[in-house]
Amino acid sequence: MSRRGLLGIAGAGLVALGASAATGYAVGRPAAEPAPASRSYPITGAHQTGISTPAQDRLHFATFDLLTEDRDDVVELLRTWTAAADRMMRGLPAGELGPSSGPYDAPPDDTGETEDLDASHLTITFGFGPSFFEGADGAARFGLDGRKPALLADLPHFPADALEDARCGGDIAVQACADDPQVAVHAIRNLARLAFGTASVRWSQLGYGRTSTTSTSQSTPRNLFGFKDGTANIKAEEPAALEDHVWVQPEDSASDPGAAWLAGGSYLVARRIRMTIETWDRSSLREQETITGRTKGSGAPLSGGDEHTEPDFTVTGRGDVPLIDPASHVALAHPSANGGARMLRRGYNYTDGSDGLGRLDAGLFFLCYVRDPATQYIPLQNTLARDDLLSEYLRHTGSGLWAVPPGLPAGSTTGGTDGAYVGQTLFEA
Amino acid sequence: MSRRGLLGIAGAGLVALGASAATGYAVGRPAAEPAPASRSYPITGAHQTGISTPAQDRLHFATFDLLTEDRDDVVELLRTWTAAADRMMRGLPAGELGPSSGPYDAPPDDTGETEDLDASHLTITFGFGPSFFEGADGAARFGLDGRKPALLADLPHFPADALEDARCGGDIAVQACADDPQVAVHAIRNLARLAFGTASVRWSQLGYGRTSTTSTSQSTPRNLFGFKDGTANIKAEEPAALEDHVWVQPEDSASDPGAAWLAGGSYLVARRIRMTIETWDRSSLREQETITGRTKGSGAPLSGGDEHTEPDFTVTGRGDVPLIDPASHVALAHPSANGGARMLRRGYNYTDGSDGLGRLDAGLFFLCYVRDPATQYIPLQNTLARDDLLSEYLRHTGSGLWAVPPGLPAGSTTGGTDGAYVGQTLFEA
Repeated sequence: MSRRGLLGIAGAGLVALGASAATGYAVGRPAAEPAPASRSYPITGAHQTGISTPAQDRLHFATFDLLTEDRDDVVELLRTWTAAADRMMRGLPAGELGPSSGPYDAPPDDTGETEDLDASHLTITFGFGPSFFEGADGAARFGLDGRKPALLADLPHFPADALEDARCGGDIAVQACADDPQVAVHAIRNLARLAFGTASVRWSQLGYGRTSTTSTSQSTPRNLFGFKDGTANIKAEEPAALEDHVWVQPEDSASDPGAAWLAGGSYLVARRIRMTIETWDRSSLREQETITGRTKGSGAPLSGGDEHTEPDFTVTGRGDVPLIDPASHVALAHPSANGGARMLRRGYNYTDGSDGLGRLDAGLFFLCYVRDPATQYIPLQNTLARDDLLSEYLRHTGSGLWAVPPGLPAGSTTGGTDGAYVGQTLFEA
Repeated sequence: MSRRGLLGIAGAGLVALGASAATGYAVGRPAAEPAPASRSYPITGAHQTGISTPAQDRLHFATFDLLTEDRDDVVELLRTWTAAADRMMRGLPAGELGPSSGPYDAPPDDTGETEDLDASHLTITFGFGPSFFEGADGAARFGLDGRKPALLADLPHFPADALEDARCGGDIAVQACADDPQVAVHAIRNLARLAFGTASVRWSQLGYGRTSTTSTSQSTPRNLFGFKDGTANIKAEEPAALEDHVWVQPEDSASDPGAAWLAGGSYLVARRIRMTIETWDRSSLREQETITGRTKGSGAPLSGGDEHTEPDFTVTGRGDVPLIDPASHVALAHPSANGGARMLRRGYNYTDGSDGLGRLDAGLFFLCYVRDPATQYIPLQNTLARDDLLSEYLRHTGSGLWAVPPGLPAGSTTGGTDGAYVGQTLFEA
């Protein structure tokens, strides 16, 4: 059922109930109630959707900077965004009236380009960056003194970083994923519309092909090096691994009291990684497989087996040379080389036109969720940037770290002045 | 059946037949033979695919500049590209060995990222720009004296054009459309790889949502203004309209002898049209519908009826004001206002991040195919740019015109030194 059909029903209801019902569609309706549209996820749950949710095929990611220093404005924005996200994730227009039912002398409360599309498994995930909590002068913003997690610090400079300021940071990150790119773009666009005057887009990124598997029900996709990517990812079917490696635990605030509000949440790292695909495409198959540590065809580790066989770094071949190069990507990124650290990756292939020098601007928009960026991401990225053979073909051009609050309590409602909202534990607990 | 499965079969064949068969897969095989993979179109036919073919959902468009002035190099490039396009449209790797079968000390002849995907209705359409025929000094290139169609002239400057040189022109345009964006990107990337040293990418553009209907079997999609777009398009089921308005006819060369080789082909106009969506989103529904001349919900003309009702520009309302504003988009773009001119539109929505000023860089990548740009596109665009109410919300930032050669003769084969190739009528007839 498309939103047009839903709108027809809602519209008829509005006529029957009179104008006073016009603001009543979402308010008072438990957010966890089965969604009216197919292919939709509820906004309620212990964690936000879009993290351990099976990775959808398309991404629109955007970061926003706040234009206000008023705490009430920010809470109001978060309430408004949460209610709109709840609606859009159900496959409904962003606002209660929709794009075409009037009033004719006001702007529509939805922009309309998804009017004939369903929810397409849309998820919208929000995170708060270091600059959300503190101004450049280190002073707390929005009365959030003492509530900035110690782990939420700007990422350090990594070897060979080539970051562009216009692709870094942002007070708030919003990750919209869907099976249909028009649905993901529509979500970001309508959140930007609702933020007018309070927050504006800092940068945004489209991704067209997921490069990670977050559920055993999914097949492993390929990145733009032509290799399978994300084989060893943490999956939704590993609840213990999610607790250990992805979700911030209540006890984590013992050592980091500012993170108490973040229990059930996570940290999101974004890295825009341009690949020098023209150079890669002229390297030999042997070099490509040596660098990766896996075969290009099946994705099996070079130590043998199939895609899902654990790599064996002890196996040697002629001249006692290890079959998997110790400087290969699979060797350096493996948990065994990183104190057992794992992460939930959720990246996308991107292609953003060309660079004026005859080369496509293409690569990986890397997204990962971790319980502790200081032990799970930063040391690993230092190792990879310094030693990984693959790094020669990579250039990190964008970056950010955000604290991702937990989900909305089961049974809660969104909208109005008393609805639940993303970030409520930060502002009210 | 994915290309991996196909590759397995091909690979087994190669082993059985010995190394001498390694170049033999596509050569000598009639291009029109039923494609082995599902969801594929043949490369042969009176016209190139990707024009009246039902519009796929995703686009990667690129233009290339030639780095050579040698005619043989260009013919060789066109042969190579045609053979690779034939293979990729069948759902096969771009080269006969594929991305992972070796030889290990050479670069793979396919980049691999579509290895587990099928053909996804891929079409690859080639066109030659004015600069393909003549250098900046007006001298003929590649011995093509007298073969440049008179109609293939740079488009004139239109009112309010805001063109960026880095998004304009190009010796050769390649339009890759598919149901899967990774398949479309893979096609352009592998053509760029094969062109190394002979041609390089000038600019490229991704599109994610078709905005046109080119077959009565398709529903009408919506553009980023939230309105249905392309309702009145020429469709594959209108063969007479295609002959009249899209395909260059043999008799057209009576007045334009340089276009004799183009019979069965067409002209492609590309315009990258940025929409000021933030401003649009703050305009009233009444204004949006007045500007468009249609309702936002159903897409019916404001003179009444449903989406497919012909607009009636004579119907007036209160105060004898026409229900459809004479300066609305539907009124000014209608064939009745343009001497009966129609075109086959094949555009896509695009979103290319943001512009650093808090606004999304989003809009319409307009593509159309016409028999005669001088009568079908240029006057219309002059009218729209000058008078259309919609123009206030549009900025044309990219542009190009290309002559699109006819298709490959039925039964012809591609590959090797005697295969058929796109543009053969230009170089050999």
